[in-house]
Amino acid sequence: MTPENSGTLYGVGLGPGDPELMTLKAVRILREAPVIAHFRKKGRAGHARTIAQAHICAAAVETPFDYPLTTESNFRDDPYVGAIRDFYTASAKTIMQHLAEGRDVALLCEGDPFFYGSFLHMYDRIRSMHPVTVVPGITGMSGCWTAAAAPITYGDDVLAVLPGTLDRAALATHLKSADAAVIMKIGKNLDKIKQALADAGRFADAIYVERGTMQGERVMPLAALEDGAAPYFSIILLPGGRGRRIR
Amino acid sequence: MTPENSGTLYGVGLGPGDPELMTLKAVRILREAPVIAHFRKKGRAGHARTIAQAHICAAAVETPFDYPLTTESNFRDDPYVGAIRDFYTASAKTIMQHLAEGRDVALLCEGDPFFYGSFLHMYDRIRSMHPVTVVPGITGMSGCWTAAAAPITYGDDVLAVLPGTLDRAALATHLKSADAAVIMKIGKNLDKIKQALADAGRFADAIYVERGTMQGERVMPLAALEDGAAPYFSIILLPGGRGRRIR
Repeated sequence: MTPENSGTLYGVGLGPGDPELMTLKAVRILREAPVIAHFRKKGRAGHARTIAQAHICAAAVETPFDYPLTTESNFRDDPYVGAIRDFYTASAKTIMQHLAEGRDVALLCEGDPFFYGSFLHMYDRIRSMHPVTVVPGITGMSGCWTAAAAPITYGDDVLAVLPGTLDRAALATHLKSADAAVIMKIGKNLDKIKQALADAGRFADAIYVERGTMQGERVMPLAALEDGAAPYFSIILLPGGRGRRIR
Repeated sequence: MTPENSGTLYGVGLGPGDPELMTLKAVRILREAPVIAHFRKKGRAGHARTIAQAHICAAAVETPFDYPLTTESNFRDDPYVGAIRDFYTASAKTIMQHLAEGRDVALLCEGDPFFYGSFLHMYDRIRSMHPVTVVPGITGMSGCWTAAAAPITYGDDVLAVLPGTLDRAALATHLKSADAAVIMKIGKNLDKIKQALADAGRFADAIYVERGTMQGERVMPLAALEDGAAPYFSIILLPGGRGRRIR
């Protein structure tokens, strides 16, 4: 049902935060896009919008979408799912109106559009109706292991990417069976994650990264981090390479 | 022991293959680098060198390093380890000679320098002697899931990145416990990987990608792939999002 003169939705990966880590392709598409869309926390400029700032055409129409709730909630928490579903459906409708009228829309995506993130909810709603092109970006986790000067995987390492929302036992099981790990969605899960790392015998090797590649970046052994919650842009790294380096 | 006037080693991530997926930072560093180093298969132009072609300064000195053996061998195979260790040590020595004489060296890296790959063996040998700066890049796997139009992870998905060199039982165990998976180093391991996917009840969902984002790209259900070995630039994807999408 693609309309003859439909615009194209571009899911534009912007990378981990440093604007210089945008790709040539992302920059080209942003410079040409007549409509710029992005998700943001209510009352904020929007992190994605800030990264892309230098390349957005002055004449572009902008359609920011303000999240109705925190994005740190558990995805299986029912009331949250209802509110966010309506929000995503309304956002997709706005985008599709531009596409139906023949205007391309660039949707700004932190990191990589196909690796977690809100873009997927637009993609699932729009792809059968209009052309969609995705521009991959450097993931937040890659920005973080670079900021920490911590090679994440060597040779035949197994890497596990884990949401901190998993329960302690599941986290520990994954941490034991992988050579390297990245734990995301830290927030209120910090204490539980520390316990799971200890359960797996790997607490001492864990690295904490806050705001990787951005202003205010902090990198330290997890053991040196004060107790309590961690902000949204934080990640825990467990580098691989144990006994596997060719030296 | 950093010499006063040492050059800097730049590990420059070039992304998955499409030159337009290089970052602004990678392009800036390549344009300024007086020495360009890269690894390649003997007798080939070198994949990394091909990606970077448009941005290398005409006056740059180039030092290609030819692998003595295939890079698809098992890392725990002893004779291989001896030969490759000597090769990496000699390559690092060549790079350090330029650095000691004050010349910056840009080492071209496919994908992301800290995510597998030969750069790590240079990093481990050089970082205590000379300044090293790493420029992250889009990983090959990200290029492949984009090429396949296959979002890899939604919401709270667990992602496992697995080398095809693991044995069948270990592969199946990881595939069962993760929501999404990426299997690399396919080559001669293809039949074993297919069996492990079947053991985990996930063969039908697997996607095969060859030369993602490059000329000659092929994407198909794994079930449609002919038997036998797969080339080096191939990957198997098992997308996440089962029952987790917010619709």
